[in-house]
Amino acid sequence: ADMPAKAKTCVGCHGVDGNSMVPNFPKLAGQHAKYLEKALKDFRDGFRKDATMETFAKNLSDKEIKELAEYYASQEAK
Amino acid sequence: ADMPAKAKTCVGCHGVDGNSMVPNFPKLAGQHAKYLEKALKDFRDGFRKDATMETFAKNLSDKEIKELAEYYASQEAK
Repeated sequence: ADMPAKAKTCVGCHGVDGNSMVPNFPKLAGQHAKYLEKALKDFRDGFRKDATMETFAKNLSDKEIKELAEYYASQEAK
Repeated sequence: ADMPAKAKTCVGCHGVDGNSMVPNFPKLAGQHAKYLEKALKDFRDGFRKDATMETFAKNLSDKEIKELAEYYASQEAK
C-alpha cells in the first residue's frame, strides 16, 4: 500500500517504513494493525500520555488512524 | 538468550517468542530493547495505564525488566 499522506509526520522518529532506528522509539513495521490503531487513538484521546504523540495524533480522524495502522502493519519488520 | 523466568507470564498474550498472534496485543519480537524497557517501567510505575500490564509489571525489578526487554528484542519478528 502507498504511504498515507499523514505518515509524513511519523517518519522522523519511526522511519520511512516503520523500522525506527532510534532505540527509544518503537518499531511499527509488522506490528498488528489493531494494536497500532488502539495506540494512536489512546494518544489522541488522552488515555495514553506522551506529549509528542498527542500533538501528532490529536488531529487524526478514525479513518486516518486506520490507514496509518494498516500501512505500518503491512511493512516488513527488519 | 534463554527465556527469562519472568517471561512465563508474558507468553499467554505475547507469544512464546514475542510474536503475539492476538491482534489486540503488540508483538514484542525484534522491538527495541530500550523501548520495551521504558514500556514495562511505565506500566509498573503508573505512567502508562493498563490493568493487565500493571498487574504483571508491578512485581518486576529494574533488572528483571531489562532481561525481559533484551530477550524479546533479540527474538525474530515474524
